[in-house]
Formats: sequence, structure tokens, C-alpha cells
Amino acid sequence: MPPTLNRMPQLRLALCQVNATVGAIADNTDLVLARAREAAAAGARLVAFPEMVLTGYPVEDLALRRSFQRASREALDGLAQRLLDDGLGEVAVVVGYLDIDERARPKLGRPAGSPENALAVLHGGRVAIRSAKHHLPNYGVFDEYRYFVPGNVLPVVRLHGVDIAFAICEDLWQDGGPVAAARGANVGLLVVLNGSPYELNKDDTRLELCARRAAEAGATLAYVNLVGGQDELVFDGDSLVVSPTGQTLARAPQFEEAVLVVDVDLPAAGDPVDLDAGDVTVERVVISADPLPAWEVDEIAVGPRLASEAEVYAALVTGLRDYVRKNGFRSVILGLSGGIDSALVAAIACDAIGAANVHGVSMPSAYSSDHSRSDADDLAARTGCQFRTVPIAPMVDAFQDALKLSGLAEENLQARVRGVTLMGLSNAEGHLVLATGNKSELAAGYSTIYGDAVGGYAPLKDVPKTMVWKLSEWRNAEAERRGETPPIPPNSITKPPSAELRPGQLDSDSLPDYAVLDDLLDDYIEQDASAADLVAAGFDQELVEKILRLVDIAEYKRRQYPPGTKISLRAFGRDRRLPITNGWRERVPE
Amino acid sequence: MPPTLNRMPQLRLALCQVNATVGAIADNTDLVLARAREAAAAGARLVAFPEMVLTGYPVEDLALRRSFQRASREALDGLAQRLLDDGLGEVAVVVGYLDIDERARPKLGRPAGSPENALAVLHGGRVAIRSAKHHLPNYGVFDEYRYFVPGNVLPVVRLHGVDIAFAICEDLWQDGGPVAAARGANVGLLVVLNGSPYELNKDDTRLELCARRAAEAGATLAYVNLVGGQDELVFDGDSLVVSPTGQTLARAPQFEEAVLVVDVDLPAAGDPVDLDAGDVTVERVVISADPLPAWEVDEIAVGPRLASEAEVYAALVTGLRDYVRKNGFRSVILGLSGGIDSALVAAIACDAIGAANVHGVSMPSAYSSDHSRSDADDLAARTGCQFRTVPIAPMVDAFQDALKLSGLAEENLQARVRGVTLMGLSNAEGHLVLATGNKSELAAGYSTIYGDAVGGYAPLKDVPKTMVWKLSEWRNAEAERRGETPPIPPNSITKPPSAELRPGQLDSDSLPDYAVLDDLLDDYIEQDASAADLVAAGFDQELVEKILRLVDIAEYKRRQYPPGTKISLRAFGRDRRLPITNGWRERVPE
Repeated sequence: MPPTLNRMPQLRLALCQVNATVGAIADNTDLVLARAREAAAAGARLVAFPEMVLTGYPVEDLALRRSFQRASREALDGLAQRLLDDGLGEVAVVVGYLDIDERARPKLGRPAGSPENALAVLHGGRVAIRSAKHHLPNYGVFDEYRYFVPGNVLPVVRLHGVDIAFAICEDLWQDGGPVAAARGANVGLLVVLNGSPYELNKDDTRLELCARRAAEAGATLAYVNLVGGQDELVFDGDSLVVSPTGQTLARAPQFEEAVLVVDVDLPAAGDPVDLDAGDVTVERVVISADPLPAWEVDEIAVGPRLASEAEVYAALVTGLRDYVRKNGFRSVILGLSGGIDSALVAAIACDAIGAANVHGVSMPSAYSSDHSRSDADDLAARTGCQFRTVPIAPMVDAFQDALKLSGLAEENLQARVRGVTLMGLSNAEGHLVLATGNKSELAAGYSTIYGDAVGGYAPLKDVPKTMVWKLSEWRNAEAERRGETPPIPPNSITKPPSAELRPGQLDSDSLPDYAVLDDLLDDYIEQDASAADLVAAGFDQELVEKILRLVDIAEYKRRQYPPGTKISLRAFGRDRRLPITNGWRERVPE
Repeated sequence: MPPTLNRMPQLRLALCQVNATVGAIADNTDLVLARAREAAAAGARLVAFPEMVLTGYPVEDLALRRSFQRASREALDGLAQRLLDDGLGEVAVVVGYLDIDERARPKLGRPAGSPENALAVLHGGRVAIRSAKHHLPNYGVFDEYRYFVPGNVLPVVRLHGVDIAFAICEDLWQDGGPVAAARGANVGLLVVLNGSPYELNKDDTRLELCARRAAEAGATLAYVNLVGGQDELVFDGDSLVVSPTGQTLARAPQFEEAVLVVDVDLPAAGDPVDLDAGDVTVERVVISADPLPAWEVDEIAVGPRLASEAEVYAALVTGLRDYVRKNGFRSVILGLSGGIDSALVAAIACDAIGAANVHGVSMPSAYSSDHSRSDADDLAARTGCQFRTVPIAPMVDAFQDALKLSGLAEENLQARVRGVTLMGLSNAEGHLVLATGNKSELAAGYSTIYGDAVGGYAPLKDVPKTMVWKLSEWRNAEAERRGETPPIPPNSITKPPSAELRPGQLDSDSLPDYAVLDDLLDDYIEQDASAADLVAAGFDQELVEKILRLVDIAEYKRRQYPPGTKISLRAFGRDRRLPITNGWRERVPE
């Protein structure tokens, strides 16, 4: 069908939701080039990649190294040339990278070299336009005041007769700045590059936000996000396109790499107008002023959303898989106690890197129950993971001959002998040690420093115990749905939790019912409720006193003796940084 | 002598250099009251306390808790009333505390409750004027964009006929803001409240800065700082007063609590003028318009400065003493290997908390030399610390029967058995475990995770090995100067360093000479020199390759398996936050 005058210009976009690796600039550049080729082959005229895709994200202190800043800039220029050499010079490719503000002078407190969290639109073998993130988040997992200087430009590119603005992540979340300027700049499309980490149910928030900002900007909004695990974060992808009226035009899958190709009808560019854009300057460049001939549009592609347990499970598998891979490991080792936590960790690890690479170790002590061994056996049989038994009584006895410990010190000793055993096997065989503790017990300090807390990665550190049960049941049901063996022994799910560090010990000797504990922990830690708030909300006063004391002491011990892995008390979030000094505890009103 | 018209008004100030404790609001308030009484008894009319003295500093995430914000504000009001009740209503007392900006509305990324790093001048039982820190540092050890909203007021108080402005810490270090406004406001005295942590030779920088700012403000400058250890920081005090012409009028001691009482001649207040103070508004209050009758001025009190080794040693003793005390411990335990690191840590601990509270444990293995035992014995005899021997061969053998480890895994096993032994004794007897590793070996990864890295506090984590020797020699010479027994066995100082984890092992098998290593580490880590820079500076290319690789891997392992204590690679500074993923290493040019 030939173009008609009253028809809106069309554009085929590709949002490349990729899994970049921090620091691996050469690999990331290759990845971008491969995906750009794929997108161009599918007919895309504008190909967008996530925030800081060339360097990976977040780069933390690497942002401050001159040699790293230089390498990122060189990679950008090299990429532009390679796109041209590959015959992709006519495709506009936008990538995030690390740049520097060359005009900024060194100043106390200004990040060294004035790094910018930048984007560049590449076309014809060169940088057509560039800009830097304006709003720098410095809360939650973000520390960007420490690492970047802010930009103050809204870049607008005219491409095939459409004016397209570009912005980066936090610029979408904050009022004002580039997104507000986009409305004044009268653009048809706003492309936002993101490195937005997964949180429970964040996809709903994000879709609402995109729809609201599209309406505010009066433009179609294309949102492209990173995917994959990086250090303590997991990126869920979920790239999407929404129209100014809030219609979801396309949506990529969660936790998978994808090239989302979308045809959009966009308003033809008008004459540039003079703007009052506050502290943001609009910069314009024309790549091509004439619309493309029209074509038949593909159907709208909106992928299905994962349900709640499936989503969390996918996040845990993704995080573990990429942590192992990006750190150069091939295998993991963990203690199998027969309990639910280690069983779920083993199931996640088998799904992430394959059962043949997962090494379970049963380490029974004098106090271990028969079912601790048989349930661990059963788990190994169900998952097909590697399995061995190392009884710890001889090592514990050797310590006790010298030290004669009792009570908690004796309980901790057993856990520590297990930690030393796992680290010895890790050193000898090259596995990453997984710690199996869940968020509830870590928050309440029901864990041994240098004992069960030993490990390079703790998959359940952000998963409360009640969610551990839900995920285990979900994973088993999912196996049955697929006609596979459920990985987790039913007895591990149904038996009462126990640390088995003294005869007949049960978690319920020390802690309230986990449903109550998890409620209370969520209110105290995630919602910052005070002791008085908690009592007012109906929790028993004595229980509040007891649990707050446990949490405060655990927090304090974690700072004193950081356990084998960083512990975040927020879902996939930054560590809570309470001071070590335990001088403050809120009082329950008397 | 009666006042004459052409004579400048006099004022007696007291700068109270106190050791506040984070979170301990009630104790801090009592401390302020006691010192204010002492200052008033000495005739002071203006009594100044450091930054956030009521809450302690830094409060980290406590700043965000509503109940803590409320408690700080209530403590301020309570303090004003208690000062009045104690007959100190006519003395102006300025304190730092945590306040909130009541007009600020919640906003994404704005710290919860809009906390302010505030100061208040108390007089007559109430708050005469208040303000909040304008420049929020977010570099090095500071994260204040995360915790505070900025203030934009310069408070000016007329007291006994002198106009006095007040500001907080970073406002002194940054150009512009309140200190620049102070010049326009035509004040005679600028009082700055500080929580400025110790760094090597920072006292010189600080004095220069104060002199420069006093000249810029055209006012005498009074600088009052915290003293004492808090979490990972040590505050050195060093409060001082400088005239507008750069003369040091008074200076308090380093690392000691002090009330520095100073008489200053100050220009009489003129009429308030209209100002262009940029983004800062001047607010004025008159407490008393008339100058005091003149009196004979005391002599200038400028305390002596500590020499370099004495200063570092005092910082280490202060940090350890307050870490133990503020965390509710009374005693420490550490492994004594006969080597220089554990000997120096023992000496510091004995100086900090008394030899009777220091528990040394010799843990010889099959590979331990005779001198490892005799030197540890000698150290215990010299310092008078508690001492016991726990041979580790039986525990190592029990593990080896089961695990049959060799090479590095076997070396690590021995270090880990020692770690479990110390933690067992710590749990049983209530001591804080000290890790004895120095900065050079920690930076180069010459340390065992969960082994010698076990501990709640690592006194030498910021001390390079060459400085370990210097401090040991200094401490022994100091003992001789005082006619005491030098605490450190001379043989521990002179023998070649060894981990003794295999027969005949020496540090020099794995590492270059420590003088070369420390130079290289300083350039790479502290100065952010690149590999190419290092080679250009004359370091051997192969050595640079090797050491950078060791440092990068150690950094990466620390993130993966955080050792028993937080490791700062900067002197008394914040952790270097390189990403876990070891995907970036600078290449030596080929």
C-alpha cells in the first residue's frame, strides 16, 4: 500500500533486551553488534539497547578509573565503525555507555574524571548525538551521586520523518527533567534505556509508570531493559512499548534475552519549537527527514506474564546462573541437611546450571536425625545432583577434646565444622559454595557466623521462610504439570523445621510461627514500622520486644562479623546499613 | 580594666571535643550537659559541640527511622530545658543533632522523613535558632545524599555584641554556600561543627583549610570536632581556633576528649546588611546586643602535635578501644603466631583495653617453627596478656582423614581450624575476635577466607606491612624512652615473614619485597594508577601484571566471600566497591 498524505509515518523498532556483563567491554560490544545485525535483518530502522550496555551495569567504582572510562569511549567509536563495516550504517543504533564530561573540572566530592551514565545514537559510522542521565538515583541499590555527574540535554533525532527523544532510566521515574522536556519538544517517540533491577511485582509498577509518562510526553514510549543477574542484582527484562493513550503495543518476556521488533505509527515531525525545558536543553539532529513507504503491520506481540511464584523462582534461577557463570565458576557445592532450605537451593541450582554441576554434601553429626540423611538422599535421587556424605563427628570430637565447648558455642562448632568442610572441598575441586539460609532466619540471627552462613552466594537471602515453602510447593507442582519428578522431597516440605544442633531441637523452640515472624519482619524491616506501630497493629508486645531484639542483634553481628555472603534485608536490595553500635533500640511503650 | 569604646568585644568560647556514641541519645545528651557545665564553670559564654553530637555520627540508616528522628528532636528540647534548670540558661550552647524538614513532601529518592544534619543554638531554655547542613558529602566514607536533605540557611546570632555564624563540616570544605555567605553577612566569628574522620596527615590539611576559610569569611573561625572511634571510623579531635589573618589561637589535643576554652577579641556587630548569598538565606537572632566588660586574656593554648608514627598508633588504639567498648565487649582474643602482625595487634590491644583483657592463643600446627612458639611466649611475657596454647594437629588430622586435601586447600584448612578455635573460645568466653592481617597481605589476597580473616575487628586492615614494622619499632622505642619493657619481641621484628602453612614457607616465595609491594599497592589502589602508569613509573612489567592480578582477584574474592571484617583499601576509608565480576582488568601495554 503506497503512503498517503494523511497517514502517520511508520517505524520498525527493535528493543534488544540483552544480558551484559560488568567490565567485559569487548564481549558486550560483540553482543550488541550481533543483536543489532539480527534486528536489522528483521527490518528494524531504530535498534535500542539498555543503559550502560557496553560496560555492564552497575559498574560501581570502575566508573572512576580513567583507563576504564577511556576503554568505554573507545568501544563506542569502535562499535560505530563496525556497524558501518557490517552494512548497518543506515540503521540508527542507540546504546548506553560510560562517558565523561570533558568540560567539568576536578572538584572536591565530584567523582574522579566526571563520569557520565551516557547514551549515544550511532548512525553512518559515527555518533549522531549523545547525552547523559539527568536524574541520578542515590537510594535503594543505587549510588549514582557517588559515580556520575548529571547531564542536562534531551537529545532529539529526526529519523524517517519522526522526532525521537532519548532518556535513561531514572529520568523516567522522576518528575521533571528530560521526560518533561520531551513534551515541550513535541516528539513522537520517547526511547528510554534502562538498567532496572527486579523487585517483587515491579512489572506492574513499571507498566503504569510507562503509560503515565507516555501520556505526559504525548508520545509513544519504548522501554528497553537489561536482563540477567549481575552481582547482587537481577534484571528482569520486561521491555515494552506503550502508546500515548496507554495501550501496551508490545512486551518482551521476563528473565530471557529477546529482540522485540515492533512496528509503530508515529506522528510526523513538525517544525522545531522554542522551548522552556527548565534545566534541560533540547539538542536536535536530523538523520532522515522523509517518512518510509508504508507497509503492512505485524500483529501486536505482548508476551504472557509470569505468575507470582514462577516470577520469583525465575529471578532466583537467573541470579544464581549468572553469578556462577560471570564469576568463572562451573559448579556449586552445598550442604544438604534434609531440610526445606537446602532442598530448595539444590532445586534452584539444578535448574540454573544442571544437576551434574551441583554437588550436595550430607554432613551428619551425632545429633542428626535419620530423616536428615534419608531426605537428603531422596533429594539427590530426585534431582540427579552429585552427592556424598562426610560425617562430622570425628572433627567435632577433635575440637571438643581441646576446647570442651557447651551450649550455643557447641552448636556453633558443628555448623562451623561443616563450613570448613565445604570450603575445603571448594578449594580442592573448584566449586562455588552456596549458603542455604533464608531471609527469616538470617534476619532473626538464627544462623552461625562462619558456619551455615559460609558461602559465596546465598540464593535465599531475600526469601522469607513462608515463601520458601510456597516456592517449593510451586516447583513440585510445576514438575508434575510437566510430567517430571518433583525435585523436593515431600517430607522436607511437611516436617517441622529444625537446625539439629542439639537433641530434639526445633526452630519453634526459639522463634514464633514463621507466618507471624515473616509478617512482623516485613513490617519492621521493609516498612520501617516502629515497635509502637507494631503493637498498635496487634502484635503481642512481648513478641515484638523479643523479635526486635533478635533482629537488632543480628544486624549488629552481621556488621561485626559479616557472614559468608552479603545479606540484604530488602528484596533484591541494598544492605540495610545500620551502625554497628547497638546503642539504639526502639522501646515498646510501657 | 573597664571596656573602652575603641576596644573589640571579648568572648570566651569553649569547644567541647567529645566522644559521642551512635544511637545512644540519652548518654550523649548527658555527656553534652556535663561538658557544658564544665565549660560554663570555666566562664565560657558560647559552648560548641560537634556535628550530630546528640545522635552520634555517622548514624547511617538510623537517619531514616521516624522514631529515631523523633527521639533526636525530643532530646534537643529536653537538653535546652535541662540547661536552663541547671542555671546555664544564659550560656549559648550549640549542638549538632538529627532534625527533619517538615515542609518537604515525600518524593521518590528523597530520604524517608526528609532528615536533616542539623545544628541548634540553645539559650534560655529554648532553641534560639537552627539550620541544616547545606553541602552534603557523598564521597569517600560519606553517603549523605542517601540520608539527608540539604539546608539553605546561614544562622547568625548576636551574642554579647558579636555576630556569630554557624555551619557544619562539609560546608567548610566546599566553596560557596554558608561559609561564603558568612563574609557577606559581616560576622565576627564563624563556628563550624564537625564529624571529620582521621586520615594520615589530615591535621595539616585541616589547619590550612580553616585558615583559608577564616580569611575568606573575614572572621575568626572556631572548629570543633568529634573524637573517638565509631564503627569503621576514628575521629581525631584536633579542634582549633584561627584568626582571619591565619594565626592559630588555640588547638586541642588529638585523640583525647577536651574542653578547649579560648578568649577571643572579635569585631563589634554592625547593622545587618542586605545580602546576595546565592542559594543561602541569612537568618538572624539577637540574644544580647551589648559587649561584656573586658577582662585579662589567658595565654594562647596550642597543644603539641603527634609525630607520624605516634599519630597512627594513637588512631589504632582509639579505634580498637572504642569498637570494643561501644559494642559492649570487655575483652578480645587473637591468635599469636610469633609474627610481627599479631605481635603489633596484641600491643595495640593491651594499650587500648589493658593486658588483662587481651587473650592470646598460640595454635601451633605440624609446620610451625620453634620460634613461632617462643616468640609468642615472649610477647605474652612482655605485655602481660593472657596466654594459652591449643595445638591444632588433632583437628587438622580429623579433617584430613575425611577430606585428604593438598596444596592451597590444605594450607587454608590449617588457617580455618584456627578460625574455628578462636570463634569457639569467643562464643564460650565472650571475647571479641581480632583478625591480625595487614593491608598489604589483604590487598594481595595473601590470607585465608574464614581462616586468619576471621574476626570482628581487624586493627591493621588499613596498615601496610612496611608501616607495621615502623609502628612496632616506634612502640618499642617509646617503651624504652619511658623505661618500660618493649612489648614486641625483637625477633618478631627482624625475622623474615612467613605464614608457616607448609614446610619452610616464606612470604617472599609468593610476594615481592614489601617495600616494593607497598609502593605498588599505594599507586594502584590509593592513586588509581593504571597498569600503563605503573610501568611508565618504572615498575617491572611482569611484577605489575602479577600484583594487579592478585589485587583484582583478592578484591573479587572479598566481594564473593567477605572475610571476617570489612576491609577498607583506603586509609580509614570506605570500601572500594569494585563489582564482583572480574571481567575488567587493565592490560599492560604490549
